[in-house]
Amino acid sequence: MTDRAYSLFEEQQGARGINLNEVKAKLKGLSIETPSWGYGDSGTRFKVFQKEGVPRNPFEKFEDAAQVHKLTGLAPSVAIHIPWDKVEDYGKLKSHAESLGLAIGAINPNLFQEDDYMLGSVTNADAAIRRKATDHLLECVDIAKETGSRDISLWFADGTNYPGQGNIRKRKAWMQESLGEMYKALAPNMRMLIEYKCFEPAFYHTDLADWGMAYNLAQKLGPQAEVLVDTGHHLQGANIEHIVAYLIDEKRLGGFHFNSRKYADDDLIVGTVNPYELFLIFYQILSAASDRDEAIQSCVNNIAYMIDQSHNIEAKIPAMLRSVLNVQTQFAKALLVNHEEVEAAANRGDVLAAEHAVRSAFEFDVAPLLRSYREEQGLSVDPMGDYLASSYGKDIAVRGKGGASW
Amino acid sequence: MTDRAYSLFEEQQGARGINLNEVKAKLKGLSIETPSWGYGDSGTRFKVFQKEGVPRNPFEKFEDAAQVHKLTGLAPSVAIHIPWDKVEDYGKLKSHAESLGLAIGAINPNLFQEDDYMLGSVTNADAAIRRKATDHLLECVDIAKETGSRDISLWFADGTNYPGQGNIRKRKAWMQESLGEMYKALAPNMRMLIEYKCFEPAFYHTDLADWGMAYNLAQKLGPQAEVLVDTGHHLQGANIEHIVAYLIDEKRLGGFHFNSRKYADDDLIVGTVNPYELFLIFYQILSAASDRDEAIQSCVNNIAYMIDQSHNIEAKIPAMLRSVLNVQTQFAKALLVNHEEVEAAANRGDVLAAEHAVRSAFEFDVAPLLRSYREEQGLSVDPMGDYLASSYGKDIAVRGKGGASW
Amino acid sequence: MTDRAYSLFEEQQGARGINLNEVKAKLKGLSIETPSWGYGDSGTRFKVFQKEGVPRNPFEKFEDAAQVHKLTGLAPSVAIHIPWDKVEDYGKLKSHAESLGLAIGAINPNLFQEDDYMLGSVTNADAAIRRKATDHLLECVDIAKETGSRDISLWFADGTNYPGQGNIRKRKAWMQESLGEMYKALAPNMRMLIEYKCFEPAFYHTDLADWGMAYNLAQKLGPQAEVLVDTGHHLQGANIEHIVAYLIDEKRLGGFHFNSRKYADDDLIVGTVNPYELFLIFYQILSAASDRDEAIQSCVNNIAYMIDQSHNIEAKIPAMLRSVLNVQTQFAKALLVNHEEVEAAANRGDVLAAEHAVRSAFEFDVAPLLRSYREEQGLSVDPMGDYLASSYGKDIAVRGKGGASW
Amino acid sequence: MTDRAYSLFEEQQGARGINLNEVKAKLKGLSIETPSWGYGDSGTRFKVFQKEGVPRNPFEKFEDAAQVHKLTGLAPSVAIHIPWDKVEDYGKLKSHAESLGLAIGAINPNLFQEDDYMLGSVTNADAAIRRKATDHLLECVDIAKETGSRDISLWFADGTNYPGQGNIRKRKAWMQESLGEMYKALAPNMRMLIEYKCFEPAFYHTDLADWGMAYNLAQKLGPQAEVLVDTGHHLQGANIEHIVAYLIDEKRLGGFHFNSRKYADDDLIVGTVNPYELFLIFYQILSAASDRDEAIQSCVNNIAYMIDQSHNIEAKIPAMLRSVLNVQTQFAKALLVNHEEVEAAANRGDVLAAEHAVRSAFEFDVAPLLRSYREEQGLSVDPMGDYLASSYGKDIAVRGKGGASW
Repeated sequence: MTDRAYSLFEEQQGARGINLNEVKAKLKGLSIETPSWGYGDSGTRFKVFQKEGVPRNPFEKFEDAAQVHKLTGLAPSVAIHIPWDKVEDYGKLKSHAESLGLAIGAINPNLFQEDDYMLGSVTNADAAIRRKATDHLLECVDIAKETGSRDISLWFADGTNYPGQGNIRKRKAWMQESLGEMYKALAPNMRMLIEYKCFEPAFYHTDLADWGMAYNLAQKLGPQAEVLVDTGHHLQGANIEHIVAYLIDEKRLGGFHFNSRKYADDDLIVGTVNPYELFLIFYQILSAASDRDEAIQSCVNNIAYMIDQSHNIEAKIPAMLRSVLNVQTQFAKALLVNHEEVEAAANRGDVLAAEHAVRSAFEFDVAPLLRSYREEQGLSVDPMGDYLASSYGKDIAVRGKGGASW
Repeated sequence: MTDRAYSLFEEQQGARGINLNEVKAKLKGLSIETPSWGYGDSGTRFKVFQKEGVPRNPFEKFEDAAQVHKLTGLAPSVAIHIPWDKVEDYGKLKSHAESLGLAIGAINPNLFQEDDYMLGSVTNADAAIRRKATDHLLECVDIAKETGSRDISLWFADGTNYPGQGNIRKRKAWMQESLGEMYKALAPNMRMLIEYKCFEPAFYHTDLADWGMAYNLAQKLGPQAEVLVDTGHHLQGANIEHIVAYLIDEKRLGGFHFNSRKYADDDLIVGTVNPYELFLIFYQILSAASDRDEAIQSCVNNIAYMIDQSHNIEAKIPAMLRSVLNVQTQFAKALLVNHEEVEAAANRGDVLAAEHAVRSAFEFDVAPLLRSYREEQGLSVDPMGDYLASSYGKDIAVRGKGGASW
Repeated sequence: MTDRAYSLFEEQQGARGINLNEVKAKLKGLSIETPSWGYGDSGTRFKVFQKEGVPRNPFEKFEDAAQVHKLTGLAPSVAIHIPWDKVEDYGKLKSHAESLGLAIGAINPNLFQEDDYMLGSVTNADAAIRRKATDHLLECVDIAKETGSRDISLWFADGTNYPGQGNIRKRKAWMQESLGEMYKALAPNMRMLIEYKCFEPAFYHTDLADWGMAYNLAQKLGPQAEVLVDTGHHLQGANIEHIVAYLIDEKRLGGFHFNSRKYADDDLIVGTVNPYELFLIFYQILSAASDRDEAIQSCVNNIAYMIDQSHNIEAKIPAMLRSVLNVQTQFAKALLVNHEEVEAAANRGDVLAAEHAVRSAFEFDVAPLLRSYREEQGLSVDPMGDYLASSYGKDIAVRGKGGASW
Repeated sequence: MTDRAYSLFEEQQGARGINLNEVKAKLKGLSIETPSWGYGDSGTRFKVFQKEGVPRNPFEKFEDAAQVHKLTGLAPSVAIHIPWDKVEDYGKLKSHAESLGLAIGAINPNLFQEDDYMLGSVTNADAAIRRKATDHLLECVDIAKETGSRDISLWFADGTNYPGQGNIRKRKAWMQESLGEMYKALAPNMRMLIEYKCFEPAFYHTDLADWGMAYNLAQKLGPQAEVLVDTGHHLQGANIEHIVAYLIDEKRLGGFHFNSRKYADDDLIVGTVNPYELFLIFYQILSAASDRDEAIQSCVNNIAYMIDQSHNIEAKIPAMLRSVLNVQTQFAKALLVNHEEVEAAANRGDVLAAEHAVRSAFEFDVAPLLRSYREEQGLSVDPMGDYLASSYGKDIAVRGKGGASW
């Protein structure tokens, strides 16, 4: 059945002008970084449910992440969080990762879990605390140099809960000052990826509240500063794919933190709430990928696709497997959009045909394509099934409860 | 200046047809229950900032709450949470409360902090867990009998994070079954106050998601079941005062959990984000208070006003002081609405005059009124100032850090 | 290719336990009513773009609607709006409809386009206007008797723009009074479908603002009153499928007005913004369809599926074709859910498997199924293509511009 | 009573360190432009209620606007919309305005009411339509030169309703191209104020969707391009005062379109939904006004305060009176903030004191201050009362119904 399904699919797509060999080549280019903290315990403010078998240290996190990559071929790197993943010897962690077929990915500083940062880290009215926060950023640059990481992902919890609590404009200046100092410390090949978030944990104003603030800051800092889009960090109704297209056009889209949300920053498994939105994000990216402007192409090619979830009731490793597979599914569907067809319809003002040309790609079932691709790549044809059939989940139960968390 | 201010205010209001003696009598009728957990540590999922001096046990929580009541005369009762406030001997806690001039208020069961409840408590697919949850509810009824509490406030975290995770209709039936059993255990003078919440910690569906679900359930259960409105539990844009008016009209508004929110369930200090909304809630309540229907009057007279905040960066006791004072301020302003004027304008279709008649009451400064009222009642004229000038905040520092939290 | 695709699909679904003959039988049961006003001009408050060829009268609207039904077999009835579709002789309109293979569907009173209704229709403070509005409702009941329509769909624009503008509780009573009078006039087989809407055109409070208010009113009126869910009438974040499941469980879901929205009541073509949401609505309906309770089955079987869009830039007939086809597509996908699989996973607490069991049905491509079904039914295999290839769109251009609008 | 009230208020504010003479001087600096179209009929997509006496032409609009200014001293200029206010001879309109004590304010091009613009104006895929749209912009620059207007306010309805309908990045480039051409045509003292809007009438993507897009475009165009903040054009939850502070800090805040909203772009009377938000906007502006940076001061001093409402059920002139008065009220309250007090509390990390320092200014009743100020300025002490007591509203009834509308 599988073979027949694929050859039928190939025929069908060929008739639409879609060459599956090209599609597969692009599938091969997709890498999705998983976060070390996605393998540990997390929760809501009401409760963290501790799972049996969560990793007890950064080394075990990489072991779990290796399962995801081994089965899918999709997740060759792992983002780390400092100090959650602080180790004596990053060389050792790097070797460990490499021995598992992995690389250390983006470095994520943490400026929200110390009492000092209650009223802000780099935007704190207290210069000593700003200094401490900036030093942590510099420390992370050093770590990135040790781990060979290209990207430092910057999310700041900084903000206020009430009008008057902080001077918005001063805090803006302090943010720029601190990041300016960090920027200077970057190696030439490194990037700062600046994240924004509309709210939480700050409930009145967040210093970097939207893409515009992150983008403007990146522009001031220089070409090595780019914007990081977390799909859960927008107000209800925001058109995320518009922001994505916009940032690419400005050559400032550095990467994504993928996750799903229905309400606020729910941090659910990617692709489970509104899979069409994820597809539309990739449609915009792929639409820009063929732009004649090489700077735009370069931006697209360097987008860091990362998962950042805080799924708190599901088994950890399968949840991550599902996440990267869902990303791959929507990416594959977006590869089936016939951009010429969309453009032609749009240019002649045929709204219905243009819309249909996009949506109909989403409606295809890409399972035959992905099976064929996985076979060719020597990957598991059924990564979730194979994982569940393996003993890994049971084996790690010896770790017990109470492992890593945030 | 104070006397002149009050006599001027009296003159001004008299000219509008507002009799300040009647206003003061109504001010005297306002009681706001504070929550025991509002005196302990709380936070966001990112961090709980531990404060020095937070109470280490239920007894100390009542001591802190007594400060709020002593200074304001507004907060004569304290809601407790089980098991956070579980004690061997509730009689002892009750005596302690009474010795401080306080009463034990509503009992709040907790069905969200045990591993068993990860996938639901009274709506769990596992009958044994539902049994356990129902038993906890029954235990709380028993506690209420011991403490002499009239109200049991029911908030359920129950819900799902993904489509398919649970059968929505079965869960609805289980909820009704469990609460039906609890209902039967109530003493004749007791009430179940059923809370609803649009999301968090469940991110796909919440079993009691809106007022309609809570109301419908209350109707099925019987007259001792009423709806509890938490001002932070609505989707963006919801007109809360409309819901309040509606529930009063159906004689099913049991009480409030007051707090402020700009985004989600931010749980900020009451009256700090949109004070006009709080005023408009009281405007609806006071508009119904003079209804000829005695059942409506009775409903209004039995509304339980309760604070439920999780302010996490402010000093605990002053934050609670501010909260009850802010409620009093907006209540006082609402008492200045001339309902005849509003109705007359509405009846003649004069939109501008009707709107103005409501809003202009909000624009008065009620400080002179409240000062005069406090003097007459022998209360502190400046509760916040007096608290800060007292040694209480410093004295409790001996409790150290790491007190009660949730 | 088509035959191979279908047999492969059949094999695939068979392996999952899905019998396509049963699926096709259920597909045959799907009827979607289109609205007469969906064939005329409409727009936003900024501009109505007049299209060439829009129908000039109710008779032409039915002719256009007949195209949609002829090609899809999905749209056998047409809802009408009074007075937009007022005619001298409804018998004549009915015969005209029947000659086109159509029936007259729901009657939609209009209580928002006369100056008298500026401050409310059935909730107006002026008794004479309430009388006039109620008389219009009674007139619509009479029309329904003439047209043989089972359903009267009730949407009220009634609400206020400012606090104080109207007495919320009085308006509630007036609404109930008016609808109570209308209810008594219903023939035994007729239904009142009560719609709700969170806002627009009222911007402070809307008298029937949410499902809870519509449901509560329906309960008071009697068993012939049910709730009508317009998918565009909710606050951001509302879980519509939850409301759907809830109303079915209460046997009060009367029907749908389908359309798409990203922001407010955008009234776009169904299934274009978040197709997964439409699928999940059908998943809930189909999950209830097999309930043992006959009253629930009866509720499900009598749900009126109706389109209510105001697509304003697309060609009218193709937009309606797309709409009914999109509904059919998501309905077909929902028919592929294996409910036993979902329930089993949910019951054992396997969140990931339960979610996957639902979502994976959505990921299938139902094109082979629908092609096969259409062939068997003697319908157009490519309704949109056939319509565009026909001369109908050009033929109606003789009608010119400036046809029916609202 | 009035005198006593003011002297008490003066004493009270003096004790807080607020000098009322300085406050009054700043009150005198407040000018609020009213829009010509605010005097004509407007409505929702459901209905435009025609009012008796609405102006029939631009000249009459200025006459109505003159009433507002005469009574309040607040509204010395009137924004005009082209082509709604197109006249043969702008010199004549200008003289007419001046004879009424008014000036012609901002010019507002209209690029959304012609069939050509259905799929975009300056972002239309059709170069001829873009040309036409750009020509209209250039025409407006010419008109501004004739009328002596400093500002041209640019709001674009441009956007799409569906994915694929338009190429987002190409449209971005076309927007920039068109506005670049317009920019060159500006006289040196003129400004382009670029407005943004999250949605409506476009329901998928709007080309200038948020402040970031407007700001980025302004930056590219040059120093004469600034951002215009319409308070109704944001997604739910957006912190508008944060955006305001941010744009001032970047010296790119050009002006405001004030109105109120609870849901979408409701366009209600300013200050009626959440007066605290309006106060907080002014708090941010006044906080920046004393910045040492002269460029920031200059930005603040040149903010164009404009009303842009579409109140559709209220009497036109009184609604505008109320609007400018509400702006003045909140501005006056914001002038009572003691910024040193706020800053001191913020700097010492006293969240409660900082919040209180802001909110307590809002709680003062500024009626005595405004009465005193109006008396000193020789203005009506009760503008609304005086207007209603005048015969103007009745006199204009001779104009009949069916006047200007949009």
